[in-house]
Amino acid sequence: MTPNFTLLCDFYELTMAQGYFNEGKKDTVSYFDVFFRKVPDGGGFAIFAGLEQVIDYIKNLHFSEEDLAFLRSKGMFSEEFLDYLKHFRFTGDIWAVPEGTPIFPKEPVMIIRGNAIEAQLIETFVLLSFNHQSLIATKANRIVRASEGRAVMEFGSRRAQGTAGAIMGARAAYIGGCSATACTLTDRLYGVPAVGTMAHSWVQMFDSEYEAFAAYCRTYPDSVTLLVDTYNVTKSGIPNAIRAFNEILAPMGKRPVGIRLDSGDITYLSKKARKMLDEAGYPDCKIVVSNSLDEFIIKDLLRQGARIDSFGVGERLITAKSDPVFGGVYKLCAVENESGSIIPKIKISENVGKITNPHFKKVYRLYEEGKAIADLLCVHDEVIDESQPLEIFDPEHIWKRRVLTDFTARELLVPIFAQGECVYETPDIKTLQNDCRSEVDSLWDEVRRFENPHTYYVDLSQKLWDIKQELLRCGGVWKHD
Amino acid sequence: MTPNFTLLCDFYELTMAQGYFNEGKKDTVSYFDVFFRKVPDGGGFAIFAGLEQVIDYIKNLHFSEEDLAFLRSKGMFSEEFLDYLKHFRFTGDIWAVPEGTPIFPKEPVMIIRGNAIEAQLIETFVLLSFNHQSLIATKANRIVRASEGRAVMEFGSRRAQGTAGAIMGARAAYIGGCSATACTLTDRLYGVPAVGTMAHSWVQMFDSEYEAFAAYCRTYPDSVTLLVDTYNVTKSGIPNAIRAFNEILAPMGKRPVGIRLDSGDITYLSKKARKMLDEAGYPDCKIVVSNSLDEFIIKDLLRQGARIDSFGVGERLITAKSDPVFGGVYKLCAVENESGSIIPKIKISENVGKITNPHFKKVYRLYEEGKAIADLLCVHDEVIDESQPLEIFDPEHIWKRRVLTDFTARELLVPIFAQGECVYETPDIKTLQNDCRSEVDSLWDEVRRFENPHTYYVDLSQKLWDIKQELLRCGGVWKHD
Repeated sequence: MTPNFTLLCDFYELTMAQGYFNEGKKDTVSYFDVFFRKVPDGGGFAIFAGLEQVIDYIKNLHFSEEDLAFLRSKGMFSEEFLDYLKHFRFTGDIWAVPEGTPIFPKEPVMIIRGNAIEAQLIETFVLLSFNHQSLIATKANRIVRASEGRAVMEFGSRRAQGTAGAIMGARAAYIGGCSATACTLTDRLYGVPAVGTMAHSWVQMFDSEYEAFAAYCRTYPDSVTLLVDTYNVTKSGIPNAIRAFNEILAPMGKRPVGIRLDSGDITYLSKKARKMLDEAGYPDCKIVVSNSLDEFIIKDLLRQGARIDSFGVGERLITAKSDPVFGGVYKLCAVENESGSIIPKIKISENVGKITNPHFKKVYRLYEEGKAIADLLCVHDEVIDESQPLEIFDPEHIWKRRVLTDFTARELLVPIFAQGECVYETPDIKTLQNDCRSEVDSLWDEVRRFENPHTYYVDLSQKLWDIKQELLRCGGVWKHD
Repeated sequence: MTPNFTLLCDFYELTMAQGYFNEGKKDTVSYFDVFFRKVPDGGGFAIFAGLEQVIDYIKNLHFSEEDLAFLRSKGMFSEEFLDYLKHFRFTGDIWAVPEGTPIFPKEPVMIIRGNAIEAQLIETFVLLSFNHQSLIATKANRIVRASEGRAVMEFGSRRAQGTAGAIMGARAAYIGGCSATACTLTDRLYGVPAVGTMAHSWVQMFDSEYEAFAAYCRTYPDSVTLLVDTYNVTKSGIPNAIRAFNEILAPMGKRPVGIRLDSGDITYLSKKARKMLDEAGYPDCKIVVSNSLDEFIIKDLLRQGARIDSFGVGERLITAKSDPVFGGVYKLCAVENESGSIIPKIKISENVGKITNPHFKKVYRLYEEGKAIADLLCVHDEVIDESQPLEIFDPEHIWKRRVLTDFTARELLVPIFAQGECVYETPDIKTLQNDCRSEVDSLWDEVRRFENPHTYYVDLSQKLWDIKQELLRCGGVWKHD
């Protein structure tokens, strides 16, 4: 199921590659940071996802004969360069935070070290996978938190932006906390449980609603969830469901799982349905609702006392409708010179928010009393000693300082590829989901707030801050080494 | 490159399938309409796209051994049913409007006729492909129209929602009118021209901006477009570009193609750049701009007199950011009884906007003086005679009537599959783009307006209207045959 996505690159990555090849720069070792600038929906953090697909892509990275024939047909690539591409494989290093990790603006979540050609070539796919799955995992996490412990099922395949939007979207939604998906293929490929019972067309296909319900109970006595809004929920749907429970399931000694509401006023109907089911002797029958839901509507339904046991969430999750772009970027932060010294690079923008953090870095997450309090960007060779006091400061307002004494520090990025070899095994998806939940639990409530959350600290070490200031003073040109 | 997407279905399509199998309904001939209810961004029409991928999917539709083993592992499908799936192929009929056609709310744009199992199974993929590509083709068409004849290039792969979001999104954008894409794979697979020159990292990789520009001119003297905003557009980028044109290209007898602006105040900078290039003797050097553009920003830039020759449009096109869900639905409209009579079906909703149009239908587009004036939904066996006057009427406000005398009528849907065999060949993509342009040109300006467009008429024939009314009166139950 892993197609060859080598040509899923921006064409300029190939024109630049030939340029580096021609200009003697193909072996220049380059460092790129992947980071993002803004949390979607004004939230306090995002959830990192999409790494497993980057790994599959890198492992499979090669130019097929068809790819080379296509490039030749463009009439702008030399035979020498095409021959180079024929033998091209990824030989660099990649570090990344594990999937499911909460991440914050402006910190590197992936670092790529490689020659100029390979490091530039993978830009588009790396960003695409990171941006897409982090977008959906982040949105799913918001919806799951709004649901206050109730199960959230991902139902959006039909409105997804393409096949991978559906398949990988369901994967990311599960990492973010959804309990299941309607997308069968995501179950087969990634083990996300696929669930589903019936559409309105099932009910319409029979001579009566009761007959449709009875037929379903006969085929699936152990997993009956009936869709009760094809005609009229309270006058027909629920009475027919109760009759099918009584007449078909009860004689088999079976209990129903639930009913589903997909239209109408959910608050009103769920309360009414709860009462009718309870009075009929089915207090254990769950109420599932679906119908253009998202975290905002779910919070409102629960605030109004709707009697809901689980949610099916479709288009507003699978497209992240309220904020559908995750703006991850891929920026050069250093190159090595001929003698192997690392020369930090900075992109200076008139928009100060777009100035990058230079150099080959590492990131520590700092904890006090089990709660994450700040992330610290350091130069790659710095080591934090937990036994010593650590002063951290706001990189914009440097008079805001704090000394940590009783803290722990965890390195956030782990090795994924080393000299072209994959050195990382993706945990199973249930583990990723569990890790995500416990990492999110380690954030302060103030950071998890939906509206106007507290801004989590992403600081620079003194050494990194000094390097950045010197680069800013010198117009980006590093004078040492 | 066509993976097996058979399991890219909602799980309920499989539970229902086994239900139909068990209940003796697997051979019930069913008719489903694909239609949508609302044009994104408040526009007057959408552009139909995504059909070629539906065709590929249907041709390849089968359950592999791995698919069957997976379904068996779910523990809820019988061996009889799994054996049925093992031999399953699509045997039905499909009609659709050609890609690139303007489409309107509530009219069928695809019709599926098949047995209950096959017709239900393909729901998710059909909708996914239609929804995604129509969303992007529609958005691209808006952006291209806003650009008033200037070229629009699709640059969004890195922000797309998954790999197919990028690949198929670039395909759909081209159908909608974009001239090119940055996505190399879409060029290889579908012939959409891929273009691109350099990123900021190219400029940073050299010791100076001039050296980066000179190097690019040396490698690509025939296709030089230089990115001039890495440091400072007017003080450094354009002067260095002009110097490279003069010192590298001119001695080779070459002219530059263009410069690209990717940040800053585009109106101001493009005017300044135009003046500097003209004064340096490069009035033929084009100005390309990119930077979070969409139809709204482009209209504003042009209104302010920005000097722009072409646009690169990224995230706001590839995700249709301002309205990222295309709400196509798949609704049962008829079944055949044992004697082969077609029984119309209707979905009656308390929300009158969600009541469906019943029956197996055909759609005519009516033209007066070369302009499309209304679409007419008819029962499948009706034929419009252009030599006779035709009275059309508003199906909601039936006193609004008009008699057409000098008109032409074109059937909108064409056969795609007949008894499981594909009977349609997708035109090449350039033809689809040209067809789209001329079809959009056949709409009145009032329908093409961006804000508050005139609502194009989608009417029912008298015969179809009568059937719908009778079904509404009888609670959806058809009393004839």
